[in-house]
Parts: sequence; structure tokens; C-alpha cells
Amino acid sequence: MNPGSSFASSFRGRRVLITGGLGFIGSNLARKLAGLGARVTVLDSLIPEYGGHRRNLRGCERKVNVQIADVRDRHILPEMLRGQDFLFNLAGQTSHMDSMTDPETDLEINCRAQLTLLEACRRHNPGLRVVFASTRQIYGRPDYLPVDERHPLRPVDVNGINKLAGEEYHLLYSQVHGIASTVLRLTNTIGPRMRVKDARQTFVGVWIRQILEGRPIEVWGGGQLRDFTYVDDAVEAFLLAAAHPRAVGGVFNLGGVGRISLRELAETLVDVAGQGSFRVRRFPADRKKIDIGDYYSDFTRITATLGWRPRVGIRPALARTLAYYRKELPHYL
Amino acid sequence: MNPGSSFASSFRGRRVLITGGLGFIGSNLARKLAGLGARVTVLDSLIPEYGGHRRNLRGCERKVNVQIADVRDRHILPEMLRGQDFLFNLAGQTSHMDSMTDPETDLEINCRAQLTLLEACRRHNPGLRVVFASTRQIYGRPDYLPVDERHPLRPVDVNGINKLAGEEYHLLYSQVHGIASTVLRLTNTIGPRMRVKDARQTFVGVWIRQILEGRPIEVWGGGQLRDFTYVDDAVEAFLLAAAHPRAVGGVFNLGGVGRISLRELAETLVDVAGQGSFRVRRFPADRKKIDIGDYYSDFTRITATLGWRPRVGIRPALARTLAYYRKELPHYL
Repeated sequence: MNPGSSFASSFRGRRVLITGGLGFIGSNLARKLAGLGARVTVLDSLIPEYGGHRRNLRGCERKVNVQIADVRDRHILPEMLRGQDFLFNLAGQTSHMDSMTDPETDLEINCRAQLTLLEACRRHNPGLRVVFASTRQIYGRPDYLPVDERHPLRPVDVNGINKLAGEEYHLLYSQVHGIASTVLRLTNTIGPRMRVKDARQTFVGVWIRQILEGRPIEVWGGGQLRDFTYVDDAVEAFLLAAAHPRAVGGVFNLGGVGRISLRELAETLVDVAGQGSFRVRRFPADRKKIDIGDYYSDFTRITATLGWRPRVGIRPALARTLAYYRKELPHYL
Repeated sequence: MNPGSSFASSFRGRRVLITGGLGFIGSNLARKLAGLGARVTVLDSLIPEYGGHRRNLRGCERKVNVQIADVRDRHILPEMLRGQDFLFNLAGQTSHMDSMTDPETDLEINCRAQLTLLEACRRHNPGLRVVFASTRQIYGRPDYLPVDERHPLRPVDVNGINKLAGEEYHLLYSQVHGIASTVLRLTNTIGPRMRVKDARQTFVGVWIRQILEGRPIEVWGGGQLRDFTYVDDAVEAFLLAAAHPRAVGGVFNLGGVGRISLRELAETLVDVAGQGSFRVRRFPADRKKIDIGDYYSDFTRITATLGWRPRVGIRPALARTLAYYRKELPHYL
């Protein structure tokens, strides 16, 4: 835990709503908050193509109130928001490819539902504290590296455009309507409870599955540089952002310990797993169109403002993730 | 007409759809295109709060096919798009204040309907040429003046966020799906057929009405600098953008001949009208929150690329507008 992490007491006995709370990051956050003594409600649609999974809250089902509902359903929002002290807003459609084949569903979730949710906050609970999960995807192809928060915003797919709008709504409602919000722009996040069934959330999930199933990993391209945040580090960033008044109205990149090419990542994964193999393939044409090339983020702003930095490097991150799925994989397929 | 305006022949006999085509700029564009021999269909919802008005096509009703329909109605789009060579996409909710009090309607029109329209183009008429009416509102409060197209995009109201998303959809569909689109970022546009009933489209409309009704103009603040495009100049930019292959995928600011403070604008209007008066008032609090301060645009990109520049200065622009509404005002109230 970071030295600045004096937030434990900030959440004890407090009421917290997590949208997408059965998903990868949302469930890790819910578990952490329950451990800190918060009164946690998670809201999740459990749509099979998205990240939510009941197994993600295994072992703390009694500490967390689970509501199976969709953020697109405006009628449930007033009741969900009533009395909450914190809203961690992580529900989203995350697949870039799906956003290109079904753009209107992506818009409904990542754009329209976000505005509806903020309107509901304004009307029914304007005093709550909001942290929104945004994405590095909104930067598009980087002009320079590492990418800081001042980089131009030029999304290269429908998902990026809608996430950008969702982010802008949060900042606007914070500034104009006083709904105290913080935006975190996540890079690739990995760890236990990430989606491994397919690549809709992250390609690393599929790699983990392929390794454990004894199939060769397919690396597309291979030279692209990326950074990876371990999920515990990401969870800590959410808690810090929610607890610190100086995060209100702010936008912060998360980032990883170092950067790594996809080929190196595959090599490292095979090495850490002690099994498996990979092969490098050419980039499929439909993905190449919306690929962003190299990306890694500059996270000095959140370090300076909130004292956050990533702690877990890529090897331990992969090792812990593998350890989880060695036991749990059958439940996630 | 600009020296580079060799577009007259580009539209003769061609099929053109104009969304928002009974509105201020859309109707002026429709009249011009009808005069150039294009086969024009205008689509307009005629919702009373928006810019559409039957009177705007007076005298050329027989040359233009008018469809009263809403761009939000997805079911009409395939039939509307069938066989069209050009789409001038001007339908929009333009009121910044309305976007703050009813954000979801703004989203439906400026964001969701745009994506649906582009999807319909992709499925039913991917070969058509599109020009989208965007707005300088997406820049937010300028970091520097004049504002060029590389300025950061930081909208300060819901309307700006949604217009930004609408613009990004057009650029994405141009790049990824080959729907050849051009984005024009309009600054304040004035001229005959602008909305004068209230300030939903432009405050200048209300000023024109107040002058002609013998009521004093109310100037809020007064020091803010603005630029104004006369509508005939704006229409020419739309035609140039549609006709020139090198405009495909591009984003272009429009601008005005010079810049002027709101107080000077009021003085000039009173002077040109030969009647009326104005008084300066403090900015209302709800408007101050979403005001952008000074704005005027750098339009060197469109000058260099398409040869466009504004021709009509503020005095003749106001004189022609006043001349129109001296006759027509009762029909627009």
C-alpha cells in the first residue's frame, strides 16, 4: 500500500455504490471496500458479453449487496443512489470491436446512460462523491510518449468517442452542478477476475486462458509497447481519488511499472507460467484500422496530487493472475 | 463569390439531402442549391423551439422537396438517404441553455441521431458525400486567440460535448468506413432566416427583433469579442466542402471578417438600423457558468485548402438581415 494511503478510515461505515461491481475492477474494488468496513452495493447487469461474473464476489457475498440491474434503466437510478456517499462508476461496454459492429449499444451504455446517471445524481443525491473509470483509448494514436493528460483527445473508435463524452459529462457536472467527480483514465489493467473468456475486455485475458489450456498464444504484431496496471494498484487509485478533496474535478492517468512490448509480454507470461508457447501473427485488417500503435502513460499528475504510483510489476502481476486462474478458470468459461 | 468557387456545376442535377433544411443555414443552403439546379430534399422536424420555419423556403417551395420528419426517427433514414449524392447534415439542437436543462434531448439529437444517421449511410448509401455542421462551442474557453483547429477541445456545456461526439462520429466513419465526410466548425452565423423569436439559436436574432419592435437591446457583459459569418459566406463554405475531394476527412473552422465586442456590435446594429438603443447589463449567473469569454477563429486552414474566406463584413451583414426582417418579422414571431 502506498505511503499516502490513509484512506482506510474514509470508507468505514460509509455507503458505496459500484456500477459494474461484478466486473473485473469493480469486484476487486467491492472486495477491498467491504474489507475496509464500507456498506457496499454493487449494480451489475451480468450481460454475458460484458465483464460481470458472480464468481468475482465469492467469499464475500454476505458483505456486499448485489443488485442485478442495468445502468441503462433510468427508473432504478433514484433508488440506487439514495443515501449513497460514494459512487464508483465502472459500468461500461469495453470492447472496441463490438463498438464498431454495434455502435448504438456502446452509445447507450457509455454515453447516454452516463448522462442519465449524472442527472439522477443531480436530482436525487447531489452530495455524493463520484469516481469515473475512463480509458486511455480516448487519446487515440499518441503524438508523443509517455502520454500525459494534456495530450490531444482523438479517439479512433466508437468506444473511444463515447467514453470521451462520458468523461466530459462527469467533468461538466462536477464544475457546473457541483457533483464532485474525479476521472481516472485507465491503461491496460490485469489481475484476478478479469474476463478470460474472450478478448472483449483485454487480450491478456485470452492469453492467460490459452496458456492454461495448453494452446499457443497468438501475438498480433508484437512490437507494440504497452503499460499494465495491476488491479490492486488500480483499486487503490479509485480509493485515493474518492477520499481526497483535491481530486475533485480532476483527470488522472493511471499507468504501469515500466513498459513492455507485446512480444516481451508473451515471453514473460510463458516464462512465469512455466508452460505454453506463443506465435507472432500479422495484424488482422479490421483491427489494424482502429489500433493505436505504441501507448504508455505519464502518471506524474496523480503521483504529485494523490501520492499514487503503481507498485506491482509485470512479473508478479502475471504470477498472481495465473495463480488465480489455475484454480478458477473452469468457472469463467 | 470566391474566385475558387467553381462548384456551380458540381450540383446541377445532383440529389441533395439537407437535414435541418427548413432552419436558418439549411434553408439558405437549400435555396442556393435549388438555384444551382440541384434536386433538393430538406428534412426538418419543425419543432417550434428549433430553427425550422416554412417561411424560410418561401418562393422556392416548388423547387424543393420538403419532408417533415425528425432525424431521431431511425426508420425513415434508409428511404431518405436512398439515391442521394450529398448529405448536408445541419439538424441539431442549438441552445446551450436548453442542453443544460434537458440534456438527454440534446444527446438524442446531437449525438445518438448522428450515429444512427451515419450507420444508415454505411448500410444504405456509403457512396454519398457528407458535410456536417459543427460548432466552435466544442473548443470551450480559448487558451489562445484566434482559435485554430488544433486548439484543445474542452466543451463547457452538454451541447458542446454532444456536438463534439457528433463530429467525431463523422470523422471516424469517414476514416474507417469510407463515408466521405467533412466537418465545418461554425462560429456565430447571422443573416436572413435566422431565429429571431428567442435566443435559442443566436442572441443576435433577439437583438434584431428588439430593434425592430422599438425595445432596447440588452447586452450582457459587453466586452466579449466575437466573430460573425454572414450566412451566404457560410453557405458557400458548405458547397466548397462538398465539392472538393481534398476536403474529405477534414475539419475546418469558419470565421468572420474581423472581430467585434458585443457592445460594439450593439452600437453598430443601432447605427445601421437608424433606430433603437441598447443597455449593458451584468451577466446572469446561470449563463456565466457556461460562457466562454472571448472567441474568434483562425480560418487559415480552409482558406489554404479550399480557397474560402468570409466576404461580407458586419455592417452589410446586419443591414441585409435588418432589411429581411423589416418585411418578414411578423411571420417569425
